[in-house]
Amino acid sequence: MTNFWTETVKRLTPYVPGEQRSGAHITKLNTNENPYPPAPEVLQAIRGVEGDQLRRYPDPESVELRTTLAEYHGLSIDEVFVGNGSDEILALAFLAYFTNGKPLQFPDISYSFYPVYCDLYGIEQKLVELEPDYSLSLERFEANLGGIIFPNPNAPTASAVPADAVSRLLEKHTEQVLLVDEAYADFGGESVVGLIRQYPNLLVSHTFSKGRSLAGMRLGVAFGHPSLIEGLQRVKNSFNSYPVDALAQAAGVASIKAEDYYRQTLTSIMQTRQQAVSDLQNRGFEVLPSAANFVFAKAPDGNAEQVFRKLNDAGVLVRYWNKPRLDQWLRISIGTAAEMQALLSALDA
Amino acid sequence: MTNFWTETVKRLTPYVPGEQRSGAHITKLNTNENPYPPAPEVLQAIRGVEGDQLRRYPDPESVELRTTLAEYHGLSIDEVFVGNGSDEILALAFLAYFTNGKPLQFPDISYSFYPVYCDLYGIEQKLVELEPDYSLSLERFEANLGGIIFPNPNAPTASAVPADAVSRLLEKHTEQVLLVDEAYADFGGESVVGLIRQYPNLLVSHTFSKGRSLAGMRLGVAFGHPSLIEGLQRVKNSFNSYPVDALAQAAGVASIKAEDYYRQTLTSIMQTRQQAVSDLQNRGFEVLPSAANFVFAKAPDGNAEQVFRKLNDAGVLVRYWNKPRLDQWLRISIGTAAEMQALLSALDA
Repeated sequence: MTNFWTETVKRLTPYVPGEQRSGAHITKLNTNENPYPPAPEVLQAIRGVEGDQLRRYPDPESVELRTTLAEYHGLSIDEVFVGNGSDEILALAFLAYFTNGKPLQFPDISYSFYPVYCDLYGIEQKLVELEPDYSLSLERFEANLGGIIFPNPNAPTASAVPADAVSRLLEKHTEQVLLVDEAYADFGGESVVGLIRQYPNLLVSHTFSKGRSLAGMRLGVAFGHPSLIEGLQRVKNSFNSYPVDALAQAAGVASIKAEDYYRQTLTSIMQTRQQAVSDLQNRGFEVLPSAANFVFAKAPDGNAEQVFRKLNDAGVLVRYWNKPRLDQWLRISIGTAAEMQALLSALDA
Repeated sequence: MTNFWTETVKRLTPYVPGEQRSGAHITKLNTNENPYPPAPEVLQAIRGVEGDQLRRYPDPESVELRTTLAEYHGLSIDEVFVGNGSDEILALAFLAYFTNGKPLQFPDISYSFYPVYCDLYGIEQKLVELEPDYSLSLERFEANLGGIIFPNPNAPTASAVPADAVSRLLEKHTEQVLLVDEAYADFGGESVVGLIRQYPNLLVSHTFSKGRSLAGMRLGVAFGHPSLIEGLQRVKNSFNSYPVDALAQAAGVASIKAEDYYRQTLTSIMQTRQQAVSDLQNRGFEVLPSAANFVFAKAPDGNAEQVFRKLNDAGVLVRYWNKPRLDQWLRISIGTAAEMQALLSALDA
């Protein structure tokens, strides 16, 4: 720390991402990456890069990508916003919609970046407790107290709420923005993108990092009423005019068009998940129902930290939090069948 | 506008980037893009992309890229920060270092994104007037009043201040951060990166968009004392853990290593600039001395708006601002010799 740090810098508790260790003997099940590469068409789009695409600024409004996304979801382009990963979109959305002097409501167990954004912008937090079974009851949110955000499916618990429950909340909660973070909605959850025309205060964020295997490329999307999207554009254009580079725009378009490949890899991951749940249960783990590309599993006798360390020593990376209500659990990403086998072998050893 | 916009969104006046029109008959001299493609090694690095680079998160700390940059500049990695374009770095630096309740000082004519960031974060602005000849006198900044930022070379005037003048300012100004925005320093200006070890409050930003022909890729750098860099890391890790994608990291490394190519294209641009200055002067333009990849030129009889429109109709894009002290001038990027010829032909027609 120095004299030059402002109070803003001093008060921060930055987010800590999962370790990015890699190597031949590492089984990486700690950051919910997709075990399959992106569609061949995506690699083609990138490999076909020309010098002109790089020396010129990208389209600051990402028109082709937003149009492709709009058509895919049956929306118009002014209902679609794109950013440099969905974390950037959340960062912009917090600034745009949650700096209203009212407390922001989110689950006490959810994406650990939410409290970090609150610190960054000085937003008061109102935590909403998960049920004893780690499910999220939307009835616990107070309508119109302040903004609301939650992941659906939730992380790290993997559990999802149905779209009609979100609808019921939106019928009551009409005065502030409700942001549904659907980073993991590709793996069996119900998306509420279809509800944005009904509820002008509903913002929905998606990512290309999970279902679409593009974590390395940084690409996220938000859907909402044109005026909500316009507000995001205003903040984006006051922060960085060109957040999405030319290759990410091209890769995003190619990814959306590669629908068959995408369906196929999602199906594989959901099948592997089903097998992983029963394999873990057979080894004494309690596994929460998962609608995501990871499972949240309570270690036998709650010895999660010990299991985490032993797996780590064996080169199998999973995620562990030494925090109340989480410290007996592990979050395990769904890899390929071979990667899950490596996990099971390490557990058995 | 809607009920859901916070005061933050309402008070913004977003930045407006130059038009990204393109096509066979367009000569694009309006956004200071490099007319030459990036080095062949950069294209190779991108075309060699593998699925694993994309499905996995990039290195959140960009260690290889920062190490390469540190070696190139004779620094250590903890003196180097990278971001999703230098605009993002400025956005993070304003939040980290200029939200101290004191007015931020910058030239009244300079990069038009600075006042936008001030609006975004509610920072008071103290404008420092350029001299009648549009040069910047660093003596005009008040030492220790508040933070200071200026571009060197300045934009859109293209004029540069020498490094020893920056040194003299830093001898007096010791209590707040001084940010020198060296986006255009590759084209003949004097960089002050070498001064960061002498002055712990000096932050210097660079971009890969201009000299290194990577505007489409979004990559910027900041240099400073390790504690200044740590402050930027804290803000970055409270905003977006992975702002620089895997391909931008690889492209950046390849670019820094392609030193010969880089020197060669810079030399070409500076030669073309010299010719462009005399060609414009021969046509009655007043041209300010330029140390950048653009020139700032006063139209004959000050009819800049008319010249701008006629050039635009002829498919030659340059930049014009209808603002006091700027409205008789055009900012013209230095293109290839052929592009400059297209400009001259359009002017003559």
